[in-house]
Amino acid sequence: MDTLNVFDFLDRIIALIKEENVLNPQETDRVIEYEDPEDLKIKIDFSLTESCANLDELEAICRNVIKYSIKTNSGKFHNQLYGGTDLFGLGATWLSESLNTNQHTFEVAPVFTLIERSVIEEVKHVVGYEEGDGLFSPGGSISNMYGMVLARYRLFPETKTKGLSGLPTLVAFTSEEATHWLGIGTDNVIKIKTDDLGRMIPEELERQIVLNKSKGCVPFFVNATAGTTVVGAIDPLDEIAEICNKHKLWLHIDACYGGTLLLSKNHRQRLGASHRSDSFAWNPHKMLGAPLQCSIFITRQNNILHECNSASAGYLFQQDKFYDVSYDTGDKSIQCGRKVDGFKLWLMWKVRGSVGFQSLIDNALDCANYFKNKISKLEGFRLVQKNFETSSVCFWYIPANLRGKKEDEEWWQKMNNVAPAIKEKIVKSGKLMVGYSPLLHRGMYNFFRMITTCHPVPTYSDMDYVIAQIQHFEKAL
Amino acid sequence: MDTLNVFDFLDRIIALIKEENVLNPQETDRVIEYEDPEDLKIKIDFSLTESCANLDELEAICRNVIKYSIKTNSGKFHNQLYGGTDLFGLGATWLSESLNTNQHTFEVAPVFTLIERSVIEEVKHVVGYEEGDGLFSPGGSISNMYGMVLARYRLFPETKTKGLSGLPTLVAFTSEEATHWLGIGTDNVIKIKTDDLGRMIPEELERQIVLNKSKGCVPFFVNATAGTTVVGAIDPLDEIAEICNKHKLWLHIDACYGGTLLLSKNHRQRLGASHRSDSFAWNPHKMLGAPLQCSIFITRQNNILHECNSASAGYLFQQDKFYDVSYDTGDKSIQCGRKVDGFKLWLMWKVRGSVGFQSLIDNALDCANYFKNKISKLEGFRLVQKNFETSSVCFWYIPANLRGKKEDEEWWQKMNNVAPAIKEKIVKSGKLMVGYSPLLHRGMYNFFRMITTCHPVPTYSDMDYVIAQIQHFEKAL
Repeated sequence: MDTLNVFDFLDRIIALIKEENVLNPQETDRVIEYEDPEDLKIKIDFSLTESCANLDELEAICRNVIKYSIKTNSGKFHNQLYGGTDLFGLGATWLSESLNTNQHTFEVAPVFTLIERSVIEEVKHVVGYEEGDGLFSPGGSISNMYGMVLARYRLFPETKTKGLSGLPTLVAFTSEEATHWLGIGTDNVIKIKTDDLGRMIPEELERQIVLNKSKGCVPFFVNATAGTTVVGAIDPLDEIAEICNKHKLWLHIDACYGGTLLLSKNHRQRLGASHRSDSFAWNPHKMLGAPLQCSIFITRQNNILHECNSASAGYLFQQDKFYDVSYDTGDKSIQCGRKVDGFKLWLMWKVRGSVGFQSLIDNALDCANYFKNKISKLEGFRLVQKNFETSSVCFWYIPANLRGKKEDEEWWQKMNNVAPAIKEKIVKSGKLMVGYSPLLHRGMYNFFRMITTCHPVPTYSDMDYVIAQIQHFEKAL
Repeated sequence: MDTLNVFDFLDRIIALIKEENVLNPQETDRVIEYEDPEDLKIKIDFSLTESCANLDELEAICRNVIKYSIKTNSGKFHNQLYGGTDLFGLGATWLSESLNTNQHTFEVAPVFTLIERSVIEEVKHVVGYEEGDGLFSPGGSISNMYGMVLARYRLFPETKTKGLSGLPTLVAFTSEEATHWLGIGTDNVIKIKTDDLGRMIPEELERQIVLNKSKGCVPFFVNATAGTTVVGAIDPLDEIAEICNKHKLWLHIDACYGGTLLLSKNHRQRLGASHRSDSFAWNPHKMLGAPLQCSIFITRQNNILHECNSASAGYLFQQDKFYDVSYDTGDKSIQCGRKVDGFKLWLMWKVRGSVGFQSLIDNALDCANYFKNKISKLEGFRLVQKNFETSSVCFWYIPANLRGKKEDEEWWQKMNNVAPAIKEKIVKSGKLMVGYSPLLHRGMYNFFRMITTCHPVPTYSDMDYVIAQIQHFEKAL
């Protein structure tokens, strides 16, 4: 396989991306060409062998990879909190992947180091932190873990050297799943009751703090969410900040989904008290459409990111360099190498400006609002809650044969099967991808969760299409 | 900014990558165009504003990003354990970034799910595991953390729910820096003495295990390294496995760097006992040249990855889907979403075959060997150790004015400044990037660390060039 062929392959990849409409799926293109796993194994030979494929075989493989992959850039994909990619961000990844370097030192990433700094400064500004620090991480779970680890370190700096053994039981108030990695058992993770819009009830939080203290446990971390995974609820940040202040608890805001709203003057007040938090996580790869992965963690506290995480590994991060080594970020991070994820957001920001971001966000929310208003007047559709706070519109679809019946347990059991059954039909038709979920702790059976994101730029017509597909596939039940 | 412009931008990015030789730097191209951070801020406007850039401005920005970034695809980059990128892997990332999806469910990543499975199965086969499980993670630190978390879970499954509070002090034998996140304090991380090739001394390991048990601590995890960061040492895996077996300790092998050797029949015996480990981490983004990030974690134990990490979050990973949900990997992972990193390695493997990988690896090691043999005969060069085990050749360069002198503390203090001083000159000239490091725990002052990787495919002439540059820049001291 000589050099010429490799460059030829790169050209073919670009040609394929264009020919197959990967970035601009057409109205007639399917969002998915569904095959069961066992059938897909027949369509594509996944095995790895001793021998090599030639360029034509490789092209055929890539064509099949495209054919059977989900077209998230299609206006028919509303299945996740992310959607398609901002194509300017995509161009940035093509370039940064070609430059193939890591974020850990200025030495190997001079431009990307200053870009990360610039983006972090701007995000701190948007959130309202006057001081502090931050970095890009490989996703929301890890960004949230940074918050929890710093919270613990502030209260018990000796955990860094002594570990958790011998400490009292630490208690966190969060719905975060990754706590067990950190040695905080899931029993010590208290979920706080929510109101009928899915928002944490501040009085419940305070009651739990007092209760857990009285048991001899040590509360150390409160996670407020701005944009919950299912209904997109935004917790009452100001009241929670007040309670954290009173009890001297670290307040982390998981704004992985909802943080994007801060970039729109028309919607940012929903996260108005963000600046009162100690740390904040935001995933521009969700609503804003930065290519996956793009997650930011910031903290209002100076130096703590370095103090908590530095290993002072002289063999990794030499201190006798000829430049100012405070530009090296490797000792702040739990990872040694990090992808240069900041570049794509930075380039998107450069080309669109805050103004451009705002109009994309406003459009996504306007479409969500249009969708909500429309289904609220249509027979068979029932909103899970009257208002949405991020861009998630949740609703039940009641098929004709269940309408007007007594809504007893048996009726709900039937309703519970409706969303999965319609989804199966829709997905197998290739016409649409939209998610569903129950919220069992709120006594709610399966309902649809319709998400709008900034990319591909949604339209009212896309919204109408979703409604029409659900109505159409009811008949196939 | 309309759609047409975006596609125009993508074409310009591809054109720029070609025009600026990003993927094939020429002999006359610099590996780095060095500017101090403050100067670089003048060359590139890093600020983010309200307003938008137009396409021409954007192109100019990208041209500068390229100009001042490191050319890791140049034959002059030997600074890190990674180097340039396998261009077939790069093509894979261009495609997968365009498809913009996550690895967490079969639903949104049908092809990439089966690809990850196929690669994990093949890697298990190469390592010699007959059973087990695995996944791609965002880098070596996190892959190694997976090993430590599983080890702890096997010994004390209750840590998942109860946390570490109330447990005896757990002790790990590793040089891993990230332990404090997991609630294992750095004081409880025991570094084992090494021999004069930098390899863990098994008798020392056993002595420490017994000693720590006698103190009332509970050893639970041994990390053996196959390819240490500085000298590339490979620990005596068979003897360490024997000790772990005797004391019933989890053996994790950090083969992030050295794991690539397993793909060459000529070199794989150096990691011959890998199959005796309980878990194994390997970064194909290091020597093999998969685009960053590409890190694999596998374990020989069945089910434990799921049992330990599952959160059973019904709202994330619905169980009432119409396909076999055992294909969904989200509940095995500490991350909710994961990049589809497996695809690039899979495509590289498809096109090159095991046979192609072997010849690339053999060539990289042959060049390292050529380099080592050549400098061992040259005046002024002194090897840190006679043999290398992975692809790291470490050496001191003794400038003419220090040769033949008494090698006392003062002499070594002077020597300690040589590598940083030569490096500064070389980097500022743009001619070469090569790393240096001390190994203070072995009493060694700064020496050069020369790394060869599979990409760009190194040649003897590249090796001669490195030697000539170091000799040349001695004169500029």
